[in-house]
Amino acid sequence: MISKAETINRALDEAIPLIEPLNIHKAMRYAILAGGKRVRPILCLAACELVGGEERLTIQAACAVEMIHTMSLIKDDLPCMDNDDLRRGKPTTHKVFGESVAILSGGALLALAFEHLTEADVPSKKMVRVVKELAKSIGTKGLVAGQAKDLSSEGLDPNDVGLEDLEYIHVHKTGALLEASAVIGAVIGGGSEEEIEKVRGFARCIGLLFQVVDDILDETKSSEELGKTAGKDQVAGKLTYPKVMGLEKSKEFVKKLKREGKEHIQGFDSDKVKPLIALTNFIANRNN
Amino acid sequence: MISKAETINRALDEAIPLIEPLNIHKAMRYAILAGGKRVRPILCLAACELVGGEERLTIQAACAVEMIHTMSLIKDDLPCMDNDDLRRGKPTTHKVFGESVAILSGGALLALAFEHLTEADVPSKKMVRVVKELAKSIGTKGLVAGQAKDLSSEGLDPNDVGLEDLEYIHVHKTGALLEASAVIGAVIGGGSEEEIEKVRGFARCIGLLFQVVDDILDETKSSEELGKTAGKDQVAGKLTYPKVMGLEKSKEFVKKLKREGKEHIQGFDSDKVKPLIALTNFIANRNN
Repeated sequence: MISKAETINRALDEAIPLIEPLNIHKAMRYAILAGGKRVRPILCLAACELVGGEERLTIQAACAVEMIHTMSLIKDDLPCMDNDDLRRGKPTTHKVFGESVAILSGGALLALAFEHLTEADVPSKKMVRVVKELAKSIGTKGLVAGQAKDLSSEGLDPNDVGLEDLEYIHVHKTGALLEASAVIGAVIGGGSEEEIEKVRGFARCIGLLFQVVDDILDETKSSEELGKTAGKDQVAGKLTYPKVMGLEKSKEFVKKLKREGKEHIQGFDSDKVKPLIALTNFIANRNN
Repeated sequence: MISKAETINRALDEAIPLIEPLNIHKAMRYAILAGGKRVRPILCLAACELVGGEERLTIQAACAVEMIHTMSLIKDDLPCMDNDDLRRGKPTTHKVFGESVAILSGGALLALAFEHLTEADVPSKKMVRVVKELAKSIGTKGLVAGQAKDLSSEGLDPNDVGLEDLEYIHVHKTGALLEASAVIGAVIGGGSEEEIEKVRGFARCIGLLFQVVDDILDETKSSEELGKTAGKDQVAGKLTYPKVMGLEKSKEFVKKLKREGKEHIQGFDSDKVKPLIALTNFIANRNN
């Protein structure tokens, strides 16, 4: 898993050179090379290998999903959104480069994601499917839907909001891109429709798992430990799993999702499953 | 040309239904159905027909370029960018829906553009080329590069800025997407490489023509006539053609670009050239 993250970091470094317009590329690099966990690109690479594909085929796609994830973080942190000053232990992009450059660099990352993706050595028919899958995951059927619901739910009484709403937010805001990352890897890797659906099922569990753990960490850890502002969901009056179902039940839910995720990929070659099991454990047990 | 605009308006209306998340789709529809000139999608449709393709093949692509254009307008108008209250004669999107919904709806339009594009009945190999062409036109090789330079040039003394800088801004900020619109139409329409390059040359002239006329209008018309804040380039200290080369020389430049644009498409079937000639004249002679 660590070697996959290093592969991604090297590829991202190459994919975003420090060229003109300099300030925009500086901001793009600042935001994306700040040392994230690279969960989405690792998922993409591992899903490709799971179905028998070569890692090299999906490097561009893996970079693309991380570019889109980074764009969404830049956007989330903006003053008119979550208004956050700290991300991955460093000042947020708009704090360093100003709001307009932050917004432009987010848009540039999104555009580059699609451009970079199309440079992969992948048959055109598969590539069109991949472009569609990625686009769907970031629009009003995915990321944007989650962000919109998240914003409109701020400040509501947890008693007035059901698990259903909370799940809607997370399935869209975090889950959709994680799911797309895995599915894209499996499509590029040459998986059968049945295999792709198994990978999708696994990714859905991982997506929710990721978010429940995130919510628990936000409530139980300090900003220093997290590298981002802790307790901010509390302050913003945001819905979280601990708030809606309590801390203990949230921890039980983590165990359930971990188990279910692994069940989805049981039938695959045991060696090839290892990176995805490692990723699942990492997500469940992480401290930041 | 009018019938093409109507085709586009109907297709856009269908492409963005009023579904959940409601507020985001309302904002997307508000921004895109506000009655723009539809120059980019018309260019896309006409370029497809010019090289012998059927209009229906490129409807989705035409909608996609208008979605991206609209996204760029929403972004340009934001408080941290040009901070504009009026667009196409109506309050700007963030004025009506708030800044966060405006930013989310812009992102949603961008995502939908790529998703919608991939739904066209176009061979995969061509589609991959089209996706790449579109992505390139909106990132740091296109739109974003122009917006970045535009922002960083604000308030500079016109004497310190050359025509070169001004052209850089316009070639990227306006030209890149106009060029992509035409090239995409020609690719989908089945144009040869030679034909595609002719269309590209035509679109480059049109892109610059469009911007020079825009600059002249900004200086000579009222807000009411324009449907957007007039003289705002003056106020923001922005570079414009009249400012750098004077009003008369700008008008001469318009004539030159008009002539050169038409020269690029001289060899094509005279009937099929007509919509592009009409578009060129419309852009050169428009009053808003």
